[in-house]
Amino acid sequence: MNPIVQCVPNISEGRDIGKINYITAPLKNQEGFKCISVEPDQDYNRSVITLIGNPQAMIEPLIEFFRRAVEKIDMTKHHGEHARMGAVDVVPFIPISDVTIEACIEYANQLSRIVATLFNVPIFLYAKAATSPSRINLPDIRKGEFEGMSEKIKDSEWKPDFGPQKMHPTFGVTAIGARIPLIAYNIDLNTTDEKIASAIAKAIRQSSGGFQYIQAGPVFLDQRNHVQVTMNILDYKKNPIYRIIETVKMEAKRYHVTVTGSEIVGLCPKDALLDSLKYYLSVNQIPFDKQMSLSELSEDSIKYLQLRDFNVFKIIEAHL
Amino acid sequence: MNPIVQCVPNISEGRDIGKINYITAPLKNQEGFKCISVEPDQDYNRSVITLIGNPQAMIEPLIEFFRRAVEKIDMTKHHGEHARMGAVDVVPFIPISDVTIEACIEYANQLSRIVATLFNVPIFLYAKAATSPSRINLPDIRKGEFEGMSEKIKDSEWKPDFGPQKMHPTFGVTAIGARIPLIAYNIDLNTTDEKIASAIAKAIRQSSGGFQYIQAGPVFLDQRNHVQVTMNILDYKKNPIYRIIETVKMEAKRYHVTVTGSEIVGLCPKDALLDSLKYYLSVNQIPFDKQMSLSELSEDSIKYLQLRDFNVFKIIEAHL
Repeated sequence: MNPIVQCVPNISEGRDIGKINYITAPLKNQEGFKCISVEPDQDYNRSVITLIGNPQAMIEPLIEFFRRAVEKIDMTKHHGEHARMGAVDVVPFIPISDVTIEACIEYANQLSRIVATLFNVPIFLYAKAATSPSRINLPDIRKGEFEGMSEKIKDSEWKPDFGPQKMHPTFGVTAIGARIPLIAYNIDLNTTDEKIASAIAKAIRQSSGGFQYIQAGPVFLDQRNHVQVTMNILDYKKNPIYRIIETVKMEAKRYHVTVTGSEIVGLCPKDALLDSLKYYLSVNQIPFDKQMSLSELSEDSIKYLQLRDFNVFKIIEAHL
Repeated sequence: MNPIVQCVPNISEGRDIGKINYITAPLKNQEGFKCISVEPDQDYNRSVITLIGNPQAMIEPLIEFFRRAVEKIDMTKHHGEHARMGAVDVVPFIPISDVTIEACIEYANQLSRIVATLFNVPIFLYAKAATSPSRINLPDIRKGEFEGMSEKIKDSEWKPDFGPQKMHPTFGVTAIGARIPLIAYNIDLNTTDEKIASAIAKAIRQSSGGFQYIQAGPVFLDQRNHVQVTMNILDYKKNPIYRIIETVKMEAKRYHVTVTGSEIVGLCPKDALLDSLKYYLSVNQIPFDKQMSLSELSEDSIKYLQLRDFNVFKIIEAHL
């Protein structure tokens, strides 16, 4: 058992590279996990940090990272286009393999407890770690932002899960939680007719009666001169990729349009590909070997899911 | 335009055939609609009446039907296994063709207003006609039943939509509303392995992440010696039959099982079959004629949806 999570802390500093490097330094070159990216956004004045690896190994470096954020970021002077409420704004733990969402909730609690105690920072548990329905969605917690938080936190409904019921004057407050990974997935159709992509998106997406964990819409790709059904798969265990692309193929038939390819934007957990490959191999009566190498998995996924612009480094586990 | 609705009044009398005939007599042999069945249930001590036709033509006969229920049914003496709160317990209007759900809501209001005024009966609007979220589900309104209603109705939350805020001593109260028709649909698989039907049911049903308007489960048919995916399609416009059976076929492939047939239990609106036929004809590049006769529609539905035990009289419109 080697539990792997993705952890994506967001900090409210996206302009001062010196500060960003100082704050994120404890997360780099560590045993047990990798910092695969630090992406500052100047307009947002916010940086997104992506860690992958053993969650237990992340806890101590994350505490030092919090300490440095407390030291360097003064939220009373922060301006940026993205909504925010703290110097470290949000820290989600996302189960990738050999780890349950319940374990991720426990890591969120563990980190929250220590950070709140050491730095006197109020912390809200969110998403799957939320302790009440009003704390599931991050925007609900963040409403009012840093500036409104000192009043909001006095309300008994907004008593923090850890730390004092009082704003940290320069740091603000943080949300720490656990959530399922989502997959950004697009399916290419050999037509320029956006109406067809729109009708197919409606057939599969939750908001018009389709699959529960699919958000989808049409898009026309100017450079490539064809349409796509673009989507988020919010829970790939409940709505596996194969089921979605096969349903799209079935719907496309009535328009005499075919699926010419598909693409995964960003990273994708190995399990999501294995789940779908299992379907295709079973249909084709080919034995399924769950110990297959990542490059075999990548090749087979390209073949059966018609993935383009894909390679082994799109699989989260390839970074370990 | 010839608006067609299905209207299914339920009365709290399922044993005394003389009374049932007397109360339902005004609904029979009328111009503009048909009474296609009266089904008494002795254990429930309840009868379900199915009317099909022009809703405007139904209003006056329904009023006389209510008058006779007030006259003959004494709820203080009623016993039966089905939950109930009134002599006429519930009256849903269900749009079938050339009529919107909004129009059905209007018919529900029209009938409620007259019945409440003439007979001093409290009426709750329910389902799509509900005036508050707590009145959408009939069981929520009916909770406490006839015996608890005289207290419940005093609560301002349960003030009736029409009529006095006071129980009718022998009749009780009625729910009148509007809802979309549901289709009871089963898909046959050529296996005796219930686990396969169960896995496929999970893939398609709302409660495990599938299509929004599908309730589904597995069942083993002893007489026929194979399993079925048995389901309710709660909104066939959002989740058309073809999409469900084609998704089931796609899922079945991984188990090397095939769909050998399907069946519609009870009646089915013409539109539901037309919607699905349109898909298959388009796939096969056969022109679609929405003016096709009901027997052509029946034949084509049998062919493309692999319907068994089906004939034209399973189509609601064949009764008009």
